[in-house]
Amino acid sequence: MASAPLAVSLGDPAGVGPELICEAWARREQERLPPFFVCGGVEVLRKAAAVKQLDVPVESIGSAAESAPAFTRALPVLGHGDGSYCPGEPEPAGARLALASLESAARLAFGGDAGGVVTGPISKALLAEVGFAFPGQTEFIANACGIAPEDAVMMLAGPSLKTVPLTVHVALAEVPQLLSAEMIERRARIVAAALRSDFGLTAPRLAICALNPHAGENGRMGREEIDIIAPAIADLRAGGIDASGPHPADTLFAPHKRATYDVAIAMYHDQALVPLKALDFDCGVNVTLGLPIVRTSPDHGTAFDIAGKCLADAGAMIAAIRMAGDIAARRAAA
Amino acid sequence: MASAPLAVSLGDPAGVGPELICEAWARREQERLPPFFVCGGVEVLRKAAAVKQLDVPVESIGSAAESAPAFTRALPVLGHGDGSYCPGEPEPAGARLALASLESAARLAFGGDAGGVVTGPISKALLAEVGFAFPGQTEFIANACGIAPEDAVMMLAGPSLKTVPLTVHVALAEVPQLLSAEMIERRARIVAAALRSDFGLTAPRLAICALNPHAGENGRMGREEIDIIAPAIADLRAGGIDASGPHPADTLFAPHKRATYDVAIAMYHDQALVPLKALDFDCGVNVTLGLPIVRTSPDHGTAFDIAGKCLADAGAMIAAIRMAGDIAARRAAA
Repeated sequence: MASAPLAVSLGDPAGVGPELICEAWARREQERLPPFFVCGGVEVLRKAAAVKQLDVPVESIGSAAESAPAFTRALPVLGHGDGSYCPGEPEPAGARLALASLESAARLAFGGDAGGVVTGPISKALLAEVGFAFPGQTEFIANACGIAPEDAVMMLAGPSLKTVPLTVHVALAEVPQLLSAEMIERRARIVAAALRSDFGLTAPRLAICALNPHAGENGRMGREEIDIIAPAIADLRAGGIDASGPHPADTLFAPHKRATYDVAIAMYHDQALVPLKALDFDCGVNVTLGLPIVRTSPDHGTAFDIAGKCLADAGAMIAAIRMAGDIAARRAAA
Repeated sequence: MASAPLAVSLGDPAGVGPELICEAWARREQERLPPFFVCGGVEVLRKAAAVKQLDVPVESIGSAAESAPAFTRALPVLGHGDGSYCPGEPEPAGARLALASLESAARLAFGGDAGGVVTGPISKALLAEVGFAFPGQTEFIANACGIAPEDAVMMLAGPSLKTVPLTVHVALAEVPQLLSAEMIERRARIVAAALRSDFGLTAPRLAICALNPHAGENGRMGREEIDIIAPAIADLRAGGIDASGPHPADTLFAPHKRATYDVAIAMYHDQALVPLKALDFDCGVNVTLGLPIVRTSPDHGTAFDIAGKCLADAGAMIAAIRMAGDIAARRAAA
């Protein structure tokens, strides 16, 4: 069974989201992208396409089901939310439009009208100013699906590397106390299950990073490997998951090591994001594992400083749309 | 004035050091390597070359000065220290040989008979067992030169990236309390001076990493950027050094960002080593900045598990020898 078309949220209209969505649609054939529609922003998208000198007809549709036939001839837009297009000049009205678009996309996916959600980049600070009560889009979508935020697991995926940071937006000094064997095991199980169901890996290989340099050298430089990470790995293996480690992080992302695992589980934000962005900068996808709906996002921000200047690379947006389509198709076929 | 030949220390004879030294000599012409000699290990080197099926005549020399003429026809070895060659089977006698070789190389360089030292990989644990009182070779060499260990600054250099970790072999939980504006400034000044004198950069650009994700987002995820790192950068800039940051580490190693600086100053081991090894795995050089002598080392360990199996890549050893020669030549010409 074919999956339903994807719902793409606009992102902040002053950021690079609208122009990248237009470019993705313009390149839909060469990039073999699945049908998608945007939630709101007809005028924003028309102007973003014009600034980028892209020939992108934008067409209002009345329901998600209309988007598949419309997609071949135009960029379909569902919903009437809209605003002005002032790239690089974010304002509260734009944040409200971004939020309405996100809410609509999540609702359509949760209801089954959309095959998944691809979220455009938003400004967390601006969204907070207009009353958004979540740390980010991932937590919002988890909540919309009735999933605890700690069970919605962020994975960054590029052509060279898939990696999951177990802790994310916290000070580095807080990382050690946030780690526990239970947390590592719980999230690693979610990752393993998602790699099976969503990425078609029958026996996914999880490489678990150490926290300390050289994996602590038998406790000489930190005991988290001995007290927390190794016991978690042992439990995971006992449960039939192909988990290995704790691996010294410095060598784990070298080419010959990357060939030995499907995903690297990192202990903190930069341990995962530094190698991902060093290797796959313009094409990294942020995919949320553990949700009943499919959700991906380009792994970059609003880039207000370059919005509207034809400088932003659409690689990550295109990769996010393609990955959401692939996961939705795999789930539909299951 | 041409610089004196380089002194290469053998490293642990059970590791990959001897075979990589032999391979470097065998490739001396195609790699345009400067003359070097090894401190001790005639039989070890002969057997390592034989195992690797390399045609490497090994020749004992009586003084460092003899190595330049000998180098064209043979791998010159100075000194009588030697041992058995049992790759993959480290033992105390081998650690003692490695230590004697290191001591000899450092002495010859400090005395001016060698143009610099290239240290082969040793086992710190084994060296400690035979009475070596230093955390690593860098501290030993700093001491031999009368330099405080904290003023001998490790830089990792590959074709894609130069990076300096400000803290090295400590648990991650200890990193925040080890950072201070004074420490960052002192080491950054050593780095800037060395990039001028040893790498020929007249106005080196130093990119200083943040400690926390997203550089702390104005204090929301840690205050080290505000309290420690930014003030250090301001002082450095006031002193005429082109320092920038604190930069979020995750994006700093992406290709377009790497083009904007000459060296990335990282706050901890893996922040520097993860991108270096992801990008430049088989050719990273560890170079010690701030010393009166030239010192480089291949950025890998003894690799006991693959020693003697023709699996080790000589890229880093060759790069370390070439870099030491380049620095020595630049200093000699100054």
